[in-house]
Amino acid sequence: MKPTDRNANLKYYSIKEVPECYIHGRTDKDREDVPLFWNNSGIEVCTDGTELWIEVESDFSIYESWYAVEINGALVARSMLQPGVSNICLFRNMSGGVVKRVFFYRELQAMGADDDCYMIVKGMYSDGDFSKVPDYEHKIEFIGDSISSGEGTYGADGDMDWIPMYMSSSHNYINMISKKLNADVRIISQGGWGVCCSWDSHRESNIPDIYDYVCGLAHGEHNKSLGADKPLDTSDWQADAVVVNLGTNDDSGIRADSSIDVQVFEASVYDFLKKIRGYYPKAHILWVYGMLGYGITANISRAVTKYMDENNDSNVAYLTLPNTLEDEYGSRMHPGLKSHEKAAKMISDYLAGRL
Amino acid sequence: MKPTDRNANLKYYSIKEVPECYIHGRTDKDREDVPLFWNNSGIEVCTDGTELWIEVESDFSIYESWYAVEINGALVARSMLQPGVSNICLFRNMSGGVVKRVFFYRELQAMGADDDCYMIVKGMYSDGDFSKVPDYEHKIEFIGDSISSGEGTYGADGDMDWIPMYMSSSHNYINMISKKLNADVRIISQGGWGVCCSWDSHRESNIPDIYDYVCGLAHGEHNKSLGADKPLDTSDWQADAVVVNLGTNDDSGIRADSSIDVQVFEASVYDFLKKIRGYYPKAHILWVYGMLGYGITANISRAVTKYMDENNDSNVAYLTLPNTLEDEYGSRMHPGLKSHEKAAKMISDYLAGRL
Amino acid sequence: MKPTDRNANLKYYSIKEVPECYIHGRTDKDREDVPLFWNNSGIEVCTDGTELWIEVESDFSIYESWYAVEINGALVARSMLQPGVSNICLFRNMSGGVVKRVFFYRELQAMGADDDCYMIVKGMYSDGDFSKVPDYEHKIEFIGDSISSGEGTYGADGDMDWIPMYMSSSHNYINMISKKLNADVRIISQGGWGVCCSWDSHRESNIPDIYDYVCGLAHGEHNKSLGADKPLDTSDWQADAVVVNLGTNDDSGIRADSSIDVQVFEASVYDFLKKIRGYYPKAHILWVYGMLGYGITANISRAVTKYMDENNDSNVAYLTLPNTLEDEYGSRMHPGLKSHEKAAKMISDYLAGRL
Amino acid sequence: MKPTDRNANLKYYSIKEVPECYIHGRTDKDREDVPLFWNNSGIEVCTDGTELWIEVESDFSIYESWYAVEINGALVARSMLQPGVSNICLFRNMSGGVVKRVFFYRELQAMGADDDCYMIVKGMYSDGDFSKVPDYEHKIEFIGDSISSGEGTYGADGDMDWIPMYMSSSHNYINMISKKLNADVRIISQGGWGVCCSWDSHRESNIPDIYDYVCGLAHGEHNKSLGADKPLDTSDWQADAVVVNLGTNDDSGIRADSSIDVQVFEASVYDFLKKIRGYYPKAHILWVYGMLGYGITANISRAVTKYMDENNDSNVAYLTLPNTLEDEYGSRMHPGLKSHEKAAKMISDYLAGRL
Repeated sequence: MKPTDRNANLKYYSIKEVPECYIHGRTDKDREDVPLFWNNSGIEVCTDGTELWIEVESDFSIYESWYAVEINGALVARSMLQPGVSNICLFRNMSGGVVKRVFFYRELQAMGADDDCYMIVKGMYSDGDFSKVPDYEHKIEFIGDSISSGEGTYGADGDMDWIPMYMSSSHNYINMISKKLNADVRIISQGGWGVCCSWDSHRESNIPDIYDYVCGLAHGEHNKSLGADKPLDTSDWQADAVVVNLGTNDDSGIRADSSIDVQVFEASVYDFLKKIRGYYPKAHILWVYGMLGYGITANISRAVTKYMDENNDSNVAYLTLPNTLEDEYGSRMHPGLKSHEKAAKMISDYLAGRL
Repeated sequence: MKPTDRNANLKYYSIKEVPECYIHGRTDKDREDVPLFWNNSGIEVCTDGTELWIEVESDFSIYESWYAVEINGALVARSMLQPGVSNICLFRNMSGGVVKRVFFYRELQAMGADDDCYMIVKGMYSDGDFSKVPDYEHKIEFIGDSISSGEGTYGADGDMDWIPMYMSSSHNYINMISKKLNADVRIISQGGWGVCCSWDSHRESNIPDIYDYVCGLAHGEHNKSLGADKPLDTSDWQADAVVVNLGTNDDSGIRADSSIDVQVFEASVYDFLKKIRGYYPKAHILWVYGMLGYGITANISRAVTKYMDENNDSNVAYLTLPNTLEDEYGSRMHPGLKSHEKAAKMISDYLAGRL
Repeated sequence: MKPTDRNANLKYYSIKEVPECYIHGRTDKDREDVPLFWNNSGIEVCTDGTELWIEVESDFSIYESWYAVEINGALVARSMLQPGVSNICLFRNMSGGVVKRVFFYRELQAMGADDDCYMIVKGMYSDGDFSKVPDYEHKIEFIGDSISSGEGTYGADGDMDWIPMYMSSSHNYINMISKKLNADVRIISQGGWGVCCSWDSHRESNIPDIYDYVCGLAHGEHNKSLGADKPLDTSDWQADAVVVNLGTNDDSGIRADSSIDVQVFEASVYDFLKKIRGYYPKAHILWVYGMLGYGITANISRAVTKYMDENNDSNVAYLTLPNTLEDEYGSRMHPGLKSHEKAAKMISDYLAGRL
Repeated sequence: MKPTDRNANLKYYSIKEVPECYIHGRTDKDREDVPLFWNNSGIEVCTDGTELWIEVESDFSIYESWYAVEINGALVARSMLQPGVSNICLFRNMSGGVVKRVFFYRELQAMGADDDCYMIVKGMYSDGDFSKVPDYEHKIEFIGDSISSGEGTYGADGDMDWIPMYMSSSHNYINMISKKLNADVRIISQGGWGVCCSWDSHRESNIPDIYDYVCGLAHGEHNKSLGADKPLDTSDWQADAVVVNLGTNDDSGIRADSSIDVQVFEASVYDFLKKIRGYYPKAHILWVYGMLGYGITANISRAVTKYMDENNDSNVAYLTLPNTLEDEYGSRMHPGLKSHEKAAKMISDYLAGRL
């Protein structure tokens, strides 16, 4: 079925033809369409039509993409995305002439283990006019691991499969912070990875190494063609704050492999702060840690302190977050909705006082 | 795309070929497929495969259907359903050999104002074996209005469009009660209607008149062909309890039109209780009311009392529910999630003590 | 120690010398001092001094009185009261010139089983001026049993002694309602009693029989001398609403003794409504029930309906309250703070819409 | 009135005659009676009598003491204490033969500004036998400022007087942690002070300087006679953990007075850790901070790290606590009950994993 089969007033717009649309997340700005590489990456529009569709293309070999839809800030839909070109109806039969604010976004983190996984927004069908999305007051980048990929925020207590269905941006502390602070947020996250190694002690599985690209986690020729491997250019999106939520996997990795020294970890924290500062000279950099325990907090403290002292950079802070308590877990023994809410409250309160 | 394009192990089963599947909601039992007329009507299976799809056919002219998916009791997906035949993937890439309990259900109430609105489950694709869905401890039928149709349980505060997107079974007090009591629940509900008239004083818009059919709200030739107008047969599904949540719209209707007397209302309550008792001789009948105010509670009390006395039927009760407080509203000035949770707690606690 | 030993500026006032003081609860208005017969009965003043004392006389044989103190609406002190004359400091060392609103009240219900139990406010010591207590917007009388006596609102889970320490007005739903509605509330309550009999089937242990006196529960010569047996005179305190929370003990009593018929109960409800209406011709009368189960709700419904019909009195309503759930109990297997909060929300919301 | 006037079975015991009594808080162990210098200092007993009194002596010039009573872990009474000898009834008329666990404690921090402020437990009246208080699983010392003195945990929103009535141990995060971890807790705290200076920049107003005595805050000849100035002896009470909650006042003090350098602050943190380690060689030392903002967190981090590195002491940690949010304040613009509960959850969860 084509969208216009049921509503002849719908008109197709390629994304380039909707200059009022707001693009969320790191992507290749030179393209005609909008690849969504990271969770919470998406397209936001304001429109006064009665109906709105989005045209999305995607594929995968192992890990399929999921998407979510918010209307006027409220989550209304969440679904698996099928391969091929999909026309997804975001709303229909609503009052014409009333502006609806619509946010369509990727739920799934970038999937380094599936070169064929991608998701592209190509166009929209609307029977109304588009208007400017209200300005966000802040720009905040979040860098993290499974917690920031929302692992466990969906799914039953006890379910342990590592699948896209159980990851999200919609029930994620970062999405909550976005709303509390009226902030445009970006997420760079990969489950299982840390700042110097992965939970299972792989040194190459670290976020800093993949940070310098539009999406250093999206591999393969096709993702390359989408601009994933383009160098990161922050000239037109300068974050007010960068929040790094890493350390949980390093802690596991270091415990499991005595050949990785905590000094390596501390050096990685140090170097990553320098790298981030290079991209965002004026951003407040906040390191947070603790939603799954405090094993490596002293080392984060030491490294952050050393970085601040040696670089004379006082625009950095480190906060420990409340741990996930017994009744606050979701699936996969990961923080559930209640734990994400606690983190969102603490981080947004802190940032509100700094920004 | 066909499901088998990506997983050659998937095998198609018509619903009749899955005898282990559990059918939720009033439907035509003689058919090969399963029309889903009411919200929370659906198909539940237990399967140990790695992947599961459902084949659904639907159409509409005005009001499109929505569906939701629960895996092991946790809501993972909610989406609008497109017209035509859709193959919907319920999960994929999960651990084989582990039993997953999956519930696919209709979010949208029966739509009396759209003869073309329908939704049919036709088959499934699975690469595993099906096993019996664990027995439910209770069978409970709920009869209601917009509250039981979940109006307002999705959507932003202030949003007022009367559209399927803002109705649900997934965020509905009835779904919560189902889980608290391990009960198979059925919903018969229509927004705006009451026991004797609608909110805007239409006498013919009353639930009792449409109650005696599989789905007295689904009109038109096609719905007829699906069995909607078949007479209600409760011989194989005897409810342990019937919960009636009606009165809110009668109250508005009677206030607005002086020609409708409260005695008409009381007689309607009385007659409806008789009718329900006819279908369910042993069920505990619970009338509840109050989630949107208490305007007509005295009349419900009087009618229930009279019914109980004149029919010597003590297996009936009437409870007022906590009203929706200021911070408990959803969209459409209707009870939101918090209000539904309060109602679910009170009703399930009561029924737990009676059943 | 005398109050003036440490603050020579304190001046003694008999209660009669403080015309600005607001007297809470049924008492003998003709006396120079103020006997406090019921829980929540007390004295409220506004004063700009730095220090305030209250002079209280009390005695008991079995059940000692307890008192509580609120400053500007916040509970700051709760204590057992010793026999004899006590000078109790309500606050000291506060900023002079700033008005403090102070409420000193009895925590303990009237004690019918202890003729020697009494508590009288005689005077105050202040170093400031008194000013008028701001007007309350409503007057509401509550009539109840142990729930309204706050049994179980203090004390550890599992503690079962029937002692004053575990009863209260301070953690009671009635006190909460008073604050939510800015209402002057009065409580007439006795643990274990009902409208027609006690929990252990004593017919004479019913609230209506003792209702017509200032305090029909306070027996003995001394209480008589305090005016306890004076006939109730409501001419100068006309309630806007009367809330009756009775039935729980009748239910137990009737179950335990087959000689008490539910018709006796219903007649008692009927008669009590007539009696209350006699005292308060214009009050909205609200019967509530359910915080400890719904066993006798049908009979309350029937009696309330009959009363309303036969007396053409539509200014009456009956609401069932949410039951106390597993994690909401206090001591003595009675409703704890959370359960009282639920009841307070539901009742105050309802009354806010009626008054 | 004497306790025995009403119960001839009561027998007086000096505290020395009750060897089963458990003494909470730093005090002079060589005395016959028990001075209570700090908040949460108190006397705990288990007794099977029907009635229990405590004999307390106290005085003050400016700041009177307050006390609280818990029966079986539940707060039942809180009151101002009058000067002179008071006999306070802790419970009466309870079931004999049943063991009650009773904790009587000081609500008020040590009062350095009132040399005449003191409170001594001298004896008890009981009509039952005493038995051993069950063993605590942990010993934890808390060192803090107004937050640990419970400032603001009582009193109405907006009330600003600095008076004992608004400070507490009963609504304090430390008391909550004691229950969550079954820990004997001690508090050393002074509102307005920090680790190197007070909120108003007084260098001498720092906790480390007064730490080495039983109660370095209780001045004057009389407090000296009670043992307040005796050197701290931790030989018989070795903490499993020491929690330091300081920094909030240093932050204010340093901002207000440019002559105090943050390096002075950091050196104070460093030195205080060394001092604490001297007293408790095996304790886990946890520094916490943040319930009223994060202004000086980087300096705490730096100092803690330096201490750990230079002293090769890894048994130390630093956690930032969730800030007090808008609806979590009590009186005096200080953390209210909700904020204390958040802190208690985070700290007790952390300690549960370390102890």
